Amino acid sequence: MSFIHEDFLLQNKYSRHLYHDFAKSLPIIDFHNHLSPDKIQTNAKFDNLTDIWLRGDHYKWRAMRACGVKESLITGDNSDRDKFIAWAETVPKLLKNPLYHWTHLELKRYFGIDTLLNADTAGTIWDQTFEMLQTNEYSTRNMLQRMNVKVVCTTDDPIDSLQEHKSYALEENDNFVMFPTFRPDKAMNVEHATEYKKYINELEQASEVEIRTYADLINALRKQHDYFDQLGCRASDHGIEMPYATEYKESEIEQIFKNAISDTKISKEDVLKFKSALLHEFAVMDYEKGWVFQMHFGAMRNNNTKMYNILGPDSGYDSIGDFSHARPLAIFLDRLDNSDQLPKTILYNLNSSDNVIVSTMIGNFHGEGIAGKVQHGPAWWFHDQKEGMEEHLQILANMSQLSQFVGMVTDSRSFMSIPRHEYYRRVLCNMLGNDIEQGIIPDDDQLMADLIDKLCFKNALQYFNYSKLPESMNL
Amino acid sequence: MSFIHEDFLLQNKYSRHLYHDFAKSLPIIDFHNHLSPDKIQTNAKFDNLTDIWLRGDHYKWRAMRACGVKESLITGDNSDRDKFIAWAETVPKLLKNPLYHWTHLELKRYFGIDTLLNADTAGTIWDQTFEMLQTNEYSTRNMLQRMNVKVVCTTDDPIDSLQEHKSYALEENDNFVMFPTFRPDKAMNVEHATEYKKYINELEQASEVEIRTYADLINALRKQHDYFDQLGCRASDHGIEMPYATEYKESEIEQIFKNAISDTKISKEDVLKFKSALLHEFAVMDYEKGWVFQMHFGAMRNNNTKMYNILGPDSGYDSIGDFSHARPLAIFLDRLDNSDQLPKTILYNLNSSDNVIVSTMIGNFHGEGIAGKVQHGPAWWFHDQKEGMEEHLQILANMSQLSQFVGMVTDSRSFMSIPRHEYYRRVLCNMLGNDIEQGIIPDDDQLMADLIDKLCFKNALQYFNYSKLPESMNL
Amino acid sequence: MSFIHEDFLLQNKYSRHLYHDFAKSLPIIDFHNHLSPDKIQTNAKFDNLTDIWLRGDHYKWRAMRACGVKESLITGDNSDRDKFIAWAETVPKLLKNPLYHWTHLELKRYFGIDTLLNADTAGTIWDQTFEMLQTNEYSTRNMLQRMNVKVVCTTDDPIDSLQEHKSYALEENDNFVMFPTFRPDKAMNVEHATEYKKYINELEQASEVEIRTYADLINALRKQHDYFDQLGCRASDHGIEMPYATEYKESEIEQIFKNAISDTKISKEDVLKFKSALLHEFAVMDYEKGWVFQMHFGAMRNNNTKMYNILGPDSGYDSIGDFSHARPLAIFLDRLDNSDQLPKTILYNLNSSDNVIVSTMIGNFHGEGIAGKVQHGPAWWFHDQKEGMEEHLQILANMSQLSQFVGMVTDSRSFMSIPRHEYYRRVLCNMLGNDIEQGIIPDDDQLMADLIDKLCFKNALQYFNYSKLPESMNL
Repeated sequence: MSFIHEDFLLQNKYSRHLYHDFAKSLPIIDFHNHLSPDKIQTNAKFDNLTDIWLRGDHYKWRAMRACGVKESLITGDNSDRDKFIAWAETVPKLLKNPLYHWTHLELKRYFGIDTLLNADTAGTIWDQTFEMLQTNEYSTRNMLQRMNVKVVCTTDDPIDSLQEHKSYALEENDNFVMFPTFRPDKAMNVEHATEYKKYINELEQASEVEIRTYADLINALRKQHDYFDQLGCRASDHGIEMPYATEYKESEIEQIFKNAISDTKISKEDVLKFKSALLHEFAVMDYEKGWVFQMHFGAMRNNNTKMYNILGPDSGYDSIGDFSHARPLAIFLDRLDNSDQLPKTILYNLNSSDNVIVSTMIGNFHGEGIAGKVQHGPAWWFHDQKEGMEEHLQILANMSQLSQFVGMVTDSRSFMSIPRHEYYRRVLCNMLGNDIEQGIIPDDDQLMADLIDKLCFKNALQYFNYSKLPESMNL
Repeated sequence: MSFIHEDFLLQNKYSRHLYHDFAKSLPIIDFHNHLSPDKIQTNAKFDNLTDIWLRGDHYKWRAMRACGVKESLITGDNSDRDKFIAWAETVPKLLKNPLYHWTHLELKRYFGIDTLLNADTAGTIWDQTFEMLQTNEYSTRNMLQRMNVKVVCTTDDPIDSLQEHKSYALEENDNFVMFPTFRPDKAMNVEHATEYKKYINELEQASEVEIRTYADLINALRKQHDYFDQLGCRASDHGIEMPYATEYKESEIEQIFKNAISDTKISKEDVLKFKSALLHEFAVMDYEKGWVFQMHFGAMRNNNTKMYNILGPDSGYDSIGDFSHARPLAIFLDRLDNSDQLPKTILYNLNSSDNVIVSTMIGNFHGEGIAGKVQHGPAWWFHDQKEGMEEHLQILANMSQLSQFVGMVTDSRSFMSIPRHEYYRRVLCNMLGNDIEQGIIPDDDQLMADLIDKLCFKNALQYFNYSKLPESMNL
Repeated sequence: MSFIHEDFLLQNKYSRHLYHDFAKSLPIIDFHNHLSPDKIQTNAKFDNLTDIWLRGDHYKWRAMRACGVKESLITGDNSDRDKFIAWAETVPKLLKNPLYHWTHLELKRYFGIDTLLNADTAGTIWDQTFEMLQTNEYSTRNMLQRMNVKVVCTTDDPIDSLQEHKSYALEENDNFVMFPTFRPDKAMNVEHATEYKKYINELEQASEVEIRTYADLINALRKQHDYFDQLGCRASDHGIEMPYATEYKESEIEQIFKNAISDTKISKEDVLKFKSALLHEFAVMDYEKGWVFQMHFGAMRNNNTKMYNILGPDSGYDSIGDFSHARPLAIFLDRLDNSDQLPKTILYNLNSSDNVIVSTMIGNFHGEGIAGKVQHGPAWWFHDQKEGMEEHLQILANMSQLSQFVGMVTDSRSFMSIPRHEYYRRVLCNMLGNDIEQGIIPDDDQLMADLIDKLCFKNALQYFNYSKLPESMNL
């Protein structure tokens, strides 16, 4: 039996029934990822397995480095083939790491390969996949379509022209829809003076708004927010160290912004005030348009100075922080709620210790008629693995409501990551199947079919409320 | 087979043997709850299922709100029947939440109902229970007696007259005893000037002690403490954000109190000093009388300002905090221990991350001849569910001693919550049964019968050392 | 069947196969313990079971105290036999605590005893073991040899003469090698003025370096570091509350040191600066010699003042702290890495909440050609039990790499603790066996044999790179 077999991760008859009969064939809404809109719009293809699989994947880089692999074989000058061989040699060292499962699940689903990847099998797999990647079957669109993806939401800066989204939307295309997500992190990073001024310039050009004051800044961002909305955007996303909720006065923020764009040194406290003000503003914009406000918090990034200077951010040198989030999170949400401006919100925490904080926090804020208005987002990054998902789902179920959960996202840069939805569905069905076997939940097909439909598809569909969907979905 | 069947939660033959033969029929000591002494003394009955089950239960309110239910159907003006229907519609959405288990366990134990509660079954269940609730079988005392409850400890303010406790104690009653618990949180809340002065006035009247100074305050509280003791009280309880252990001088506390009752603004640091002093004083009082000192810490309360202004506290808007407790907890306990004034103490933490803190902290302080003098209290509030209990018991066993554990409490406002003792016993027996099956503990009936007796009944009995017990207990 | 049977802790056929065929007979490298070099060099024997088992074991003391046992029966004047009886009476109260497993595993492995220890069996076991302990079979060296120990690394102060290590190294001895570990905690504790000056004096004598300045201090420590290196030392160890990484200037440190040795009061901030400087210096020394730098952090020690005044440190009054470690840990490691001076490093955290911090932190720093350069050390102290190990291994595997893990240490003062390696191996094989059964990892003997060899033996061997090994190892 191959390692990735039909019942992979499904431990008992209930699990297998739930997955195969209810979960497996549901369409995929990937409401948060980092796929390239350009590669989708141009329906690009990839040179080889290194090009599609290793380039840009800092999970794999990090794993190779921990095995002592030379940087030249990771991000350096070695050939694509040599890099792939180095990766193949690393794989058997990754037993019990999600990369081990992802690797073989992706080889199986995209290329039909059942062999375990290692030094011995690397050459054959390289050759075999090389051939296949040249065919049209392996264009970005065909790969997404084959995985039953119906909605793709990329991550975009307010200064992005969104030309690819525009073009794609104009096509007669019934495979899947693609929408942008508004990710304005750079507009908050007032602490990096030089980059900040550069960014403000770019924003002026993109928005055609002259930015002299904080009010101008908001106008420009709001204009771009409108533009994103016109192209079907239904969510913003914010990658922040912690939920900023320092008290401030509007007049202070005006002054801080003026200092920022006039090379005047800004204190740490003022940075926090500025970020608190702007983050609040973004939430208000989302509320006004019925968008979903997403916050990713708790990462401690760029911990390796030497490598940061060589490779920049997002290169595999981030780790989990241990900040205190409960109080600022409560203040941030309460302020919005108290002025009736709280948007639908998804909170993603990077430290699993915060699962209990977030799963109970979301129970403090509601909207009449809006089930699950504030969400505890799926297990993120280092927790995006079997035990991490199970812990998240278990805590969410015990402290809030599993049935309202908006479900899985890939959060990935790779066109070969879509099977993570399958992975999540297997983990979910396995958990529910074990519960049925143990009498924790009733053995009731109707309850289960409904629940699984919601957790894999329908909750996301209703929550984001996209303006357009592929007709092939037959809703 | 009905969902709540004989072997609910019991996974193997050992678990079933342990529960049915050792745990099931043990009497119940509910040493900490929020039941109404008045309803017990008057042997009250309830109008209908909403009256006994939904009114005052902020767990259920919160669950309904997260499903988008209108507030009028929760705490508002809708009819009791409509509120029940709204709750019934919510129940199927709570799979894997403890409310789902509690709901069906309570319907089964009190009304013999085996049907799953949902929109379809709501009407019948409403009618059926409505009839039954009119009968004497469903008076408060009969309900407690039917569940084999032998000790009930309510939660009371030092200013309470305890008239119901007094009257109840004077009755010839062999069903169960009822004692008050001394909960003086309001005496600590010096930061809320207006309410504080009002409270001090009420305390003056209750104690007949004129309160001008901090020393007067202590005298008044001590007098009430004596009064509680006369009515069989064996414990105080303290609901605090964190264990207060700021350094202070007595003279400072005198001044802070004077400021508090003379409308002089008090700094945040002084508030902490005051709370630290008073909390210490309460522990000393408990030590002197051989009482048990209970601390509930780690909750972050009233996070939703809008709803707080409408509904006040304890309405379902609290969540888990992420404060650092280890150091102040150590200082608080050490100071008492070092002056030979440490009472028996139960520590309840709301954040499960603190389980390891508390389970190791209790190992730092002991009393010769007093087994388990400092206790890690049962999994509290959001952790009062299967996984939460298992995590608490597992950590307690590994880092301290399971066998000294004082056991379960309902901590509930509802007369239908007593089956949570059954729930705990099933979880406990299931854990031990699994351990036997895996060879983690010996398969030895004598060891198991002793252990289960201690963890479900005897440890609490010995630890609290009540002055009076129902003769029917035949000890 | 006896409680400790052949398949103890091994739940399925895969687990049993992995343990018996791959793990069981591997040699033991105990790279971190607190065994007495003197007792090893002199090949000492022990008076009785209290002498070898209870004396100095604060785990057992703590357990007895929590059962209300009198201190005279723990550390006091009662006879060894009475102390043993008191311990025997405590044992049945420790079900589900690691002491319960260790107790019976050690009785079985060293004395072949299958009886459960309790009040009834205590007398017989005392007599039986008393006889055996008089024989040469129970000399320290024979006990270590019988357990297949090949490397023993003790923990030593820089001022130690290491005479026993020297003598032992000169013997023709093919059983096991013994090396010191450099543990200079006292050189950091500048906050305890009197003890610190005393310590500096002792260091002067040991190193024959006059110490007037911080530079002198470093010279003296470096000279001792060299001396340890000559005797085969391959690691330092640092028991610290938190990873110190406060910013400082060298000139400040010089002044702080001068203040310390001239009775000038040192501020808390200066204490942190001094510790940060010295800890960095120790790491640099380790880097230069290719040693392994070990940090044990997160303990909150000596929480019971009354007992500290009687018994001093390490008497069973320590517990788990809840400090924030992520940021300082990152700064500490990055500073070393950025100047190319980061040694191989093992991080041991006492709070299991920090597992995710540490397992992701180690992925930020690497060395080309050095697999697993920065390590997340094995589950420590309160976490040195089945669930603690499983949690550590699971998180390490998911967030970093199980296959690079350097493995188990006893960290023990007792000559009867070596079976903890067996315990770890059983837990590990059980976890892997369960994974195979569930299809989480492939059922592949070659992969498993390699992995288990690495995690129980070979990784430690390669990581520490000892200068000498017993010939009997046949490597």
